[in-house]
Formats: sequence, structure tokens, C-alpha cells
Amino acid sequence: MNNNFSTSMPRVSIERNDMHASLKDPVLGAISFLNEIMDHYPNAISFAPGAPYAGFFDEIDVGRYLKRYSQYLTEERRMSKSQIRKRLYQYGPSKGEINGLLADALRLDEGIDVTPESIVVTVGCQEALLLVLKALCSTPNDLLAVVNPCFVGVVGAASVLNVPTVAVNETKDGLDWQDLVRVCHSARAQGQRIRALYVAPDFSNPSGSSLDMECRSRLLEFAETEDFLLLEDNAYGFTASYGNALPTLKSLDKNARVIYFGTCAKICLPGVRVGFVVADQLVVEGTHKYGILADELAALKSMVTVNTSPICQAIVGGMMLEHGGSLAAVGKPKGAFYQRNLGLLLAALERYVGPANGIDRVSWNVPSGGFFVCMTLPVEVNAQLLQDCAAEYGVLWTPMRHFYLDGGGNNQLRLACSYLTADDIDKGIQRLAHFLRDRCAASPVALGNVLS
Amino acid sequence: MNNNFSTSMPRVSIERNDMHASLKDPVLGAISFLNEIMDHYPNAISFAPGAPYAGFFDEIDVGRYLKRYSQYLTEERRMSKSQIRKRLYQYGPSKGEINGLLADALRLDEGIDVTPESIVVTVGCQEALLLVLKALCSTPNDLLAVVNPCFVGVVGAASVLNVPTVAVNETKDGLDWQDLVRVCHSARAQGQRIRALYVAPDFSNPSGSSLDMECRSRLLEFAETEDFLLLEDNAYGFTASYGNALPTLKSLDKNARVIYFGTCAKICLPGVRVGFVVADQLVVEGTHKYGILADELAALKSMVTVNTSPICQAIVGGMMLEHGGSLAAVGKPKGAFYQRNLGLLLAALERYVGPANGIDRVSWNVPSGGFFVCMTLPVEVNAQLLQDCAAEYGVLWTPMRHFYLDGGGNNQLRLACSYLTADDIDKGIQRLAHFLRDRCAASPVALGNVLS
Repeated sequence: MNNNFSTSMPRVSIERNDMHASLKDPVLGAISFLNEIMDHYPNAISFAPGAPYAGFFDEIDVGRYLKRYSQYLTEERRMSKSQIRKRLYQYGPSKGEINGLLADALRLDEGIDVTPESIVVTVGCQEALLLVLKALCSTPNDLLAVVNPCFVGVVGAASVLNVPTVAVNETKDGLDWQDLVRVCHSARAQGQRIRALYVAPDFSNPSGSSLDMECRSRLLEFAETEDFLLLEDNAYGFTASYGNALPTLKSLDKNARVIYFGTCAKICLPGVRVGFVVADQLVVEGTHKYGILADELAALKSMVTVNTSPICQAIVGGMMLEHGGSLAAVGKPKGAFYQRNLGLLLAALERYVGPANGIDRVSWNVPSGGFFVCMTLPVEVNAQLLQDCAAEYGVLWTPMRHFYLDGGGNNQLRLACSYLTADDIDKGIQRLAHFLRDRCAASPVALGNVLS
Repeated sequence: MNNNFSTSMPRVSIERNDMHASLKDPVLGAISFLNEIMDHYPNAISFAPGAPYAGFFDEIDVGRYLKRYSQYLTEERRMSKSQIRKRLYQYGPSKGEINGLLADALRLDEGIDVTPESIVVTVGCQEALLLVLKALCSTPNDLLAVVNPCFVGVVGAASVLNVPTVAVNETKDGLDWQDLVRVCHSARAQGQRIRALYVAPDFSNPSGSSLDMECRSRLLEFAETEDFLLLEDNAYGFTASYGNALPTLKSLDKNARVIYFGTCAKICLPGVRVGFVVADQLVVEGTHKYGILADELAALKSMVTVNTSPICQAIVGGMMLEHGGSLAAVGKPKGAFYQRNLGLLLAALERYVGPANGIDRVSWNVPSGGFFVCMTLPVEVNAQLLQDCAAEYGVLWTPMRHFYLDGGGNNQLRLACSYLTADDIDKGIQRLAHFLRDRCAASPVALGNVLS
């Protein structure tokens, strides 16, 4: 905005250059730009948001879940009605209310064997990321490495906390090991250290990539050798096709090398804002045991949000109890739906965008699960292109450049399949194909650039 | 703990001295100590927690509030059932869902006239404090002044964010102006500035003190002269006796000098974790208007908790709608209950601890509202004394030293009246009197020390 306001302004104004630097982080700008453009074109078919399919909300029954959870407290924990009301409505422990249920579910669903005390229930996975970065990175020499491209929530949390980040590029089935070695050595050479590496091994946001089994083992070994922690984000593991889920890093981890992040947003519902972190690492003072990392995270949480709404936790608890205490069972029909949507998206791309359609300089990856497909174009993918695509072709997506730390992804866009019906996926990809045919056939960009 | 664990420990351990310094903040230790001691003496009568009376939870009906809010969205906002489900269950705007209702309530209840866009709904007031400190204090030269003694949530949030704090002492009816002048001058002399002053003008936690009308006006003027912002926390204003509430700083503020913090924890219920902040300050870049502070806070929030659970916001919205859209009306019967409890507490102190009882070196203040009374003893009030009091006399309270920034409050304790029934208040103060008679009559501390 550039309206001069010298006469009508209220007295107090705050100079933006005087506010915290993270407010100028391009990530924040990118998010509000994307929200604005979606608001601007409400009738466009949007492959932009990685949000759950709203059709699942039809069956949500908050009252029933709360009743189910209360019944559990009555029958299994022998609580009186007034005790239950206190549990749900009063302030509660910063660590959480449903930690026992979550520990049982992790054992049952993922083969992750941890105590309830090593879990902290957070306001979505986002708060968990913030708490872990805050606890672990105490000086400007503590670096967070992230697999690049990366979920904006991690980069944003690091920016808010002034935690420096370094990028490790991903490859088709894993990580660029040379890059990882280089990053570790370079940090050491400068008197710094990689404190942790953030990675989403299953169908990561934004690229949809996964780590294969070999890469998982190797990464655990590498983290051991270089002595950094692995921050494993498992938001999308539940979307694996039947029988094809790989074991999480945390389930392969014998040495508490992995801090594991879970979210109930996709499996249960976003509106509860419930996530959790497993932090069973020992905290020591010299040679003496002090406690575990989860205790420290809970102490920090008491100064961030105090505790996660116990009502929201009870809603999640009730959903889990209705499914035999399993989060995986809650997620199963949803995972199947997203599998089908992903299949439809990939089939539509094959049908409408494939070589037979005269769009021969566009390619995309083929993830076996998750919400996202990443497409490479022979033209620069920027805000203007998105605007044109929305206005002229009625279809939206996300430029990948927002997810790269180092200026990469300039020719890429992200397509999310989670939010749409089968019909809209088909219609949307037809529109996208139309756009690609118009914009990418006549591109002046040389082929060499496309693959860079 | 001091068990050596060299053989049985898991491989990964984190050195505590290597973690963020705020984890060693005495505030965090104090909170867990207090929680532990309460767990340890479950049968003690506890004047420690400033938590709402649990009897109010009997009438809570989450399903009914959600229905009422949905009905409002149907009738007033003409939303379809599926639109309503999306509003409650999907991700939502970082700024909040019930901002319009809150703006109406602030106008109706407090004479605070702000737009819905200048409000951010947060995960309790705690998150709002964190966001504001993060946005405003960008360098180590930006200081937060706090009225001393101070709510631990503010000091803790500042500690987590490495925001330096300075103390301004409170007096019986207001602030120590000389102290405030000194603090401002001293900051300036060191090339620093007081960016904001945190103050709870109505029945503050922990001391129960209030600012009188003269002090409120003078504080607004002073903030104008010295160019700092006022962070007004109004958690306890609703407990004023009928007709005796003073206007909030924000309602007296003509220049957007005040950032106003509200919480629904005490008026509605803590379990929703809903608070809010009014931040209508203009944000500028040079001579150009950029936006308002609330926008910047919402952007930061997107990296802390993304958004406040819309289910929880709808519960608050439903409660407000059941009371004509007024938060004050929701709080009215509760405020009356706390008024009565405070009266009972003060009367019991007069009856059992007053001079006629041979406890002549103990004094306390007489707040006209709020949850807290502050008592001064002729002995040091420390963890050991609390432990003894709990174990031998079956009564708990909070040492005031945890609330002082500068080592003050060593002879003081805080009594909270909010959590207890009338019977327990009477019985608890009898026990306290017994303890005081035993411990304070025979004290070797000279009277001079008591008043220091």
C-alpha cells in the first residue's frame, strides 16, 4: 500500500523495520499471497491446499467422541463425573492428557515402543516443531539441516526462533549423501554443528518423495556417526497403499536418535489442532541423568500455550477408542481415499498431459502415496504464472520455489490431490493441460534450463 | 537426580547446558515444584492455584454451545451445513474465527471500539503474550518493563524469546513512578529502550493490586511521553464488585497506545484454551502505511500454532451467543461467586489471623476483586516453609518470591480464593492461622525486616 496518511493516522505506529526480522521472511509473504489468490478465485479448481478432504467432516460427531472418551475415563480409569469434567474443562498438564492412548497406538500401529511420559501433546505438529527447535538450538552455532525442498512450517519456525537452517537436497529415493557430508563438514569447519536434520521420510510435503529402506538405515547410521538428531515428520505415512508402508525411522531407531512428530490433523481432523512429539532422549548434566527431552519440551510449552485443549485431546481420544485405540484404524478409510485420489491425479496427468497431447516438455514425479505431486515445466513458475493460470484457466496450484531454501524450484509446481473430488481432479487436470499447452509449447526457455 | 547410569543409558543423551538457556529459568523450576507439592499433598486445602472454581463445570454443555454457534452461522451468516462443518473442522485463518463476536462484545462490555481485523484469537492469553513480545522486541536493546511482582507467564515468555525484562515496582494503588522514570532513563542511557510495559490494572496476579483512575490516566500519558506501548492484561476485571469496575486502559486509549489481552479461561472455561489480543496499532514502512499489528501477529502465529482450534472458538462463541453476545454476561455469575469467595477469605483472615488471635506480625492487603490476596510474614517464605505447612498443617499457598524479578517478596505468600468452596476457605484459613501462630509468633526475625 502506498497511501500517505500523515493527517488521519492514529498516533501510535510501529516501524516494520523495527519488528522481528522473521516477519520479513519470504515464507510468511508466500503463505498470505497463496491465501489471497485462493480467496480471489473461489471458483477455480484448486490443487493448492494440502488440506484434508472436507467430505470426511460429514461424519464428525464431536459429542459422540467426547462421550466415548468420558466413558473410557469412567470405566478404565474409574473417574467420577466431576473428576472427568475437571480433566476436560480445567487447566491440564503441559505434557498432555491422552499420552497413554497415543503411546499404545504408536506401539500397535507403528511398532514404536515408548512410555506415555516421553510424549508431549501439542497444538498441532507446528507447536511441536517450534518447541524442539527452541530446546535444541541454543546458540547461532546450532544449525538445523532440512531436506530441500522443505515443509514451510519448519523453515518458518526456525526463522521465528532465529535458528539458522542449511539445505540438504533430496533425490528420487532419498537424500543427496554428498550434500549431507558437505553440510556437516562445512559446519564443523566453521565451528558450528548440525544439531538436527528435519526429514519427512514418507511422501513429504511438498515433493511427495520418500526415503527407501536402504536410505532409512543409512540415515540412522549417518546421524550416529555425525552425532545429530533426526526430526522425523510422519504426517503422510497413513496414505501408503495397503501393505506397502515402510517402517518409520523411529521404529528402526534403537538409540533414541529420532525425535518423532505426529499430527492428528490429517488422520482425525484439522479443527482439533492436536499433534504430538515423541522425545525419549535422555537429558544429562555431565555424567548425571537429569530427565528426558519431553520434560524440557513440556516446560517450554508451559510458556508458549500452557497446555493443549483437553477438550480437543478428548475428541481425538474418543475417535481412537472408537477404532480399538488405533490411530491407523481411524486413518485407514481416509488413506484409501487419498490413494485413490492420487491414482486419479496421476492417471489424469498421463491422459491429458502426457506426450500424446503435444505437451512434451512437462514432467512430474510419481509418488506411491501422500497428498502431493511435483511437476517440472519449461517456463519459470512464479506468482504471475499462477495468477494467469487462475484467471484464464480456472485452476490453482502452488509454485515450488516457496519450499526451496536456496532459490531452487523455479520451474516447478506442486499439485495436491487431497482436497478435491474425483470429478474435480479430472476437470482440473484438463484445465491444467489446456494451460500447459498454451504456455509451455511456445516457451522460449531452452531445454537445458528445464532440468537444472 | 544423581544416579550414575553409564551402562544402562540409551546412546543419545543431550547435555542440559547445551539446551536453550530459558530451560534453566527459575520460573520453570518454580512451576514444576508447585505442581509436585500439590500432587504430594492431595488432601491439603490449597490456596495455591489461580484456577477457576470447578463447580462451574457442572453446567458446561459443549454440544449445546456448538449447536448454538452453528445456528448463528446458519441464521446470521447464511452458511450451509457443509460450510459450517468446514468452518469448525478444517484449518482456519490464523487470525481467528470469532473475531466479529469478540469485537461486538468488547464494544458492548468494555466500550472498546475496534474492528474484528484488529483482533487475533490465540491459544490462551499465553500465546498472545508470546506473539506480541516476538513481534515487538527485535534486538537485545528492546526491553520489556513489567510491573513487579508479575504474572510468571509474561516473564517466562520473555525468557523463552530472550527478551530482556526490567522491573517497575507496584505500590498500593498504582505504580512507583520514580521507579518507572528511572527505568526509562537508565535504558536510554545504555542505548536501549523500553518497548512496552506489561501491566494488569485490575486485581493483578499475583498481588491482587489495581491501578486507580488517576494512575490509569497518568500511565497513558507517561507511555505517550516515553513512547512505549502498554500491554494490558485484563484476566480479572470481570470479578469487580457490581458497579465498581474501572474503565480499562484500552477504553481510555485514544491513540492505539494499548495492546489489550483477554482470556476466556476464567470467564468461559480453561479447557478451551482460547484467549485473544487487540492490536490495532498501525504498522508503517517509513511514511507509508503497511498494515496493522494484528496482521503481523497472525503471520507469526501461523508459525507457532497455525490457528486456534475453531471448535474451541465455536464453544466460546456459543457461550457468548447464549448471553446476548456479551462476555461480561457469561462472566457475571462467576464474578459474583469470586467476589463472595474473596469476601469470605478476607473475613476469615480477619477472624482467625487478626490481632485478637495473637498473630500480630502478619499483615495482608485487601483487594476489592480478583482471585488473590498477598500476605506478609515475619519469617522467610520459602519452599521449606511451604513443605512444612503442607505436611503439618494441611494447607497450601504460593511463595511470592517466584513472582518477583529482583529477589523481592521473600516474606510474602499468595493466597488464591478462586478454586475453593466457602467451607474450605474457612477451614483452610483456620489451618493457616494455626500454622502462623506456631511459626510466626516465635520468629527470631526482627520487625524491621518484616517491612522491608
